[in-house]
Amino acid sequence: MSDVRNPYCLNSKAVSDATFEWLDKRGVNILEIAELVMLLQKKYYPTLTIEECVHNVEMVLSKREVQNAVLTGIQLDVLAEEGKLISPLQEMLVNDEGLYGVDEILAFSIVNVYGSIGFTNYGYVDKLKPGVLERLNDKTSGQVHTFLDDIVGAVAAAASSRIAHRKQAEKEADYAEEGKKFNPLAKGTSE
Amino acid sequence: MSDVRNPYCLNSKAVSDATFEWLDKRGVNILEIAELVMLLQKKYYPTLTIEECVHNVEMVLSKREVQNAVLTGIQLDVLAEEGKLISPLQEMLVNDEGLYGVDEILAFSIVNVYGSIGFTNYGYVDKLKPGVLERLNDKTSGQVHTFLDDIVGAVAAAASSRIAHRKQAEKEADYAEEGKKFNPLAKGTSE
Amino acid sequence: MSDVRNPYCLNSKAVSDATFEWLDKRGVNILEIAELVMLLQKKYYPTLTIEECVHNVEMVLSKREVQNAVLTGIQLDVLAEEGKLISPLQEMLVNDEGLYGVDEILAFSIVNVYGSIGFTNYGYVDKLKPGVLERLNDKTSGQVHTFLDDIVGAVAAAASSRIAHRKQAEKEADYAEEGKKFNPLAKGTSE
Amino acid sequence: MSDVRNPYCLNSKAVSDATFEWLDKRGVNILEIAELVMLLQKKYYPTLTIEECVHNVEMVLSKREVQNAVLTGIQLDVLAEEGKLISPLQEMLVNDEGLYGVDEILAFSIVNVYGSIGFTNYGYVDKLKPGVLERLNDKTSGQVHTFLDDIVGAVAAAASSRIAHRKQAEKEADYAEEGKKFNPLAKGTSE
Repeated sequence: MSDVRNPYCLNSKAVSDATFEWLDKRGVNILEIAELVMLLQKKYYPTLTIEECVHNVEMVLSKREVQNAVLTGIQLDVLAEEGKLISPLQEMLVNDEGLYGVDEILAFSIVNVYGSIGFTNYGYVDKLKPGVLERLNDKTSGQVHTFLDDIVGAVAAAASSRIAHRKQAEKEADYAEEGKKFNPLAKGTSE
Repeated sequence: MSDVRNPYCLNSKAVSDATFEWLDKRGVNILEIAELVMLLQKKYYPTLTIEECVHNVEMVLSKREVQNAVLTGIQLDVLAEEGKLISPLQEMLVNDEGLYGVDEILAFSIVNVYGSIGFTNYGYVDKLKPGVLERLNDKTSGQVHTFLDDIVGAVAAAASSRIAHRKQAEKEADYAEEGKKFNPLAKGTSE
Repeated sequence: MSDVRNPYCLNSKAVSDATFEWLDKRGVNILEIAELVMLLQKKYYPTLTIEECVHNVEMVLSKREVQNAVLTGIQLDVLAEEGKLISPLQEMLVNDEGLYGVDEILAFSIVNVYGSIGFTNYGYVDKLKPGVLERLNDKTSGQVHTFLDDIVGAVAAAASSRIAHRKQAEKEADYAEEGKKFNPLAKGTSE
Repeated sequence: MSDVRNPYCLNSKAVSDATFEWLDKRGVNILEIAELVMLLQKKYYPTLTIEECVHNVEMVLSKREVQNAVLTGIQLDVLAEEGKLISPLQEMLVNDEGLYGVDEILAFSIVNVYGSIGFTNYGYVDKLKPGVLERLNDKTSGQVHTFLDDIVGAVAAAASSRIAHRKQAEKEADYAEEGKKFNPLAKGTSE
């Protein structure tokens, strides 16, 4: 891969670009992931817009830990689809074997980037398979998405966690602002 | 705690006994956890009995890693209920603060003992709060179960994973047995 | 805790302030954690300064997931020191029982915030106990730091991961800059 | 993969056999992993034998969660060695990129099977690279072991945790036995 004139140097932009390109090639668009986020969060934030969801999904996908998991998972799906894996890994991936949990492990490395509060949301969408997850999970398509369906659910869960953190910050800023209106001596959010 | 005549030595039976006693003191019985397991698994194993679910919950609770998480979580709940924690940990626990995720972290250490395949089941019951989880999550009771509701869901998810592993082993044993009936030369489950 | 006039609202500044105060009360200063970071990273970045290490430790400690783990761990240490925990949790914490792993679990939730690349650094300092970790681990002091020594090692490991991510970004920015000098047509870091 | 006459059914023996075969094909033998375990544990259990270490490594490798991680990691190493991965995953794996952490994630799913007490041992051997890990980590060989070196360290750490749990059980059994000698009324390990 690398030679004397061109020693290896990680190219972050290439990693990021490949993440978005491969999601697209595998039939997943950002808007669909944003719709999962909306489904998970609209109950808590009634004024949340789909544009905000899209933005938060993009921010999650800009994290290197997430990009590594997305690329590795899609790679294994593609190779399974092409029948190029060693047996019995090949059979386990093609059949989305229930006792094979490496897909869940990669998914969790994504959720974890925004902390443990996303665990529940991940499990919930992974069980119910709404929207894009239902399509990815359709075993009659001939495509293999053993990793990708878990990864997409995890990105949505992570984006939900990111929103929860941001909304709290906004709420505290508003609260401080309002406090100042009534009490010009208030100095911040600390009581 | 320890003196010269009686140096510290971990007493595994005491840890195990305390786990079952404290679950009981906090109003959770094994049968209720087994009912969560049944809810999660009956779809996959129609002949599963509640006795098997009880047995699997007990096996999960016999693991030390699980006992450590149960005791630590219940301890924090009890101290929060008594108002004895430092601020603002006290307020976060009493109010089951959404951005406090240590309860989910302990829950995951329980699920993890039977591997990543339990992640989804945990998230699902933690979101829907069926049965005992609804009661534990009732904020009007005056009791604090910030940790315990997640822990109970995690024990149910871990027991579900344990069942999935066992049922597969039984299925393969039956398959091997049947294979031998038709083909007396077959030597095992390997093809 | 909360009444009608003063309903509960998470106060992020209070959580953050308590984190720094309690580290200080328990005898840990930021500079000591920064020295662990320097120990872990100077080999890879010879020009790294102690000021940069301090800054990165502070950034790690500004994350809510980290603050939750720090406060919860210190709380358990303090209560164990005061003899206020239920038996046998009390004995396990006072004796830093080897088969009790909840301290490692909290530590990992800290490391995880900057991704899996910090796992190795955490294990390394936790085994060798350099600097501040040796003092925290001294069982003759009468103090209990069962959680805090793991937490401090985890904060140092997370800060190391943060530095690794930042240094890569700087390197790629420099590389792009240099590329432009020689080749005015180059458009970025992508090849 | 599967047809009507031969529907897919997970073959656990095939998964287990493939795990041992692929470790062997990639140049890792069980004895070398056992030597890592001995290095980690002899300090705590001076009478520990290499045969016990071998046995514990084999028991770790008999766990499905571990087998899944071993096979998936070796698969990615082999494909990277053959130059068959998508760019930039290919370059990151061939160069064992420091900011690529999926290898650590798989390693942790192995350690986790015996609980969080193994985290420290994993980090320690992964940093120091003793014995077989030094050879696997040799970048001049032309072979790619980006995943395998972390996996082998994780198996050794998990086997160490398994030993710690077993030795405690033996110690308590001896203690109970001795107690009975002096006090025929003692009923078990509980005080």
